[in-house]
Amino acid sequence: MESGESIKEAVTREFREETGLDIHNPEIKGVFTIVIKDNEKVLDEWMMFTFRSTKVTGEMLAVSPEGHLEWQEIENVKHLPMAPGDVYIFEHILHSDDVIYGTFYYTENFELLSYELDPAN
Amino acid sequence: MESGESIKEAVTREFREETGLDIHNPEIKGVFTIVIKDNEKVLDEWMMFTFRSTKVTGEMLAVSPEGHLEWQEIENVKHLPMAPGDVYIFEHILHSDDVIYGTFYYTENFELLSYELDPAN
Repeated sequence: MESGESIKEAVTREFREETGLDIHNPEIKGVFTIVIKDNEKVLDEWMMFTFRSTKVTGEMLAVSPEGHLEWQEIENVKHLPMAPGDVYIFEHILHSDDVIYGTFYYTENFELLSYELDPAN
Repeated sequence: MESGESIKEAVTREFREETGLDIHNPEIKGVFTIVIKDNEKVLDEWMMFTFRSTKVTGEMLAVSPEGHLEWQEIENVKHLPMAPGDVYIFEHILHSDDVIYGTFYYTENFELLSYELDPAN
C-alpha cells in the first residue's frame, strides 16, 4: 500500500498495474496472518487481504510484470501453481460469500507448516 | 495483534479483555488507513479494522482498563466522546451492512484534517 491509500484503493491500483484491468466492486473476503518460521523462531509476519470482484473493464495486458495472464475456469483455479495455503483461500472465496479469517505458518521456502481457518474448511 | 493471531481472534480477545464479554460472530465492516500529519510530513500511519457483532455472552466488567463501560442506544453512539472520524464510521456501520473503506488524516492531537470514505457518506 502507498501512503494514505485505503486498502480498496490499493487493491484496485495494484490489479490495474499488474493486469491492465479495472475492478469495479472489490469486496474484502479474506483476512489472513502469514507467519514465516524457522523451527520455533518467527522470522517474519504480515497480513494478507483477499478481495473478490465480479466486474472488470479494460483490456488485459499482453505482458505483465507478474508473468503470463490468462482467464481461468473457476474449477481450474485450485490446480494452478500457488502458495499451498492459497488453495484453501480460493476454495472458500470461490464458493462462499462469507469472509474467511485465518493464520498460515510457512517455512522460509513457503512450505506450509500448518494453518487455522475460520470458518474451517 | 499478538503473533500468529488472526484478526478475528484478536478482536475477540481484545473485546473480552476490555469488557469481560465474549462476542460470537464478529464481522469485518470497516477497513481504514489512519495517517498522522504535521503539515506535509507524515508522522505515523496505521490500519484500523472495525468489526460488528450482534451476539455477546458473559458478564460485563465492573472496572475495565479502558474506562467506564455502559450499553448505549444506537442513536446515542454518535454523541459519545471519540476521535472525530469515528463518528462517520459508526454512522455507516450502525446503518448499513456494506463494508466501508477509507482514509483519515489527523494532526498529532487527533484533530481531523480530512477524510475519504467509500461508500461516501
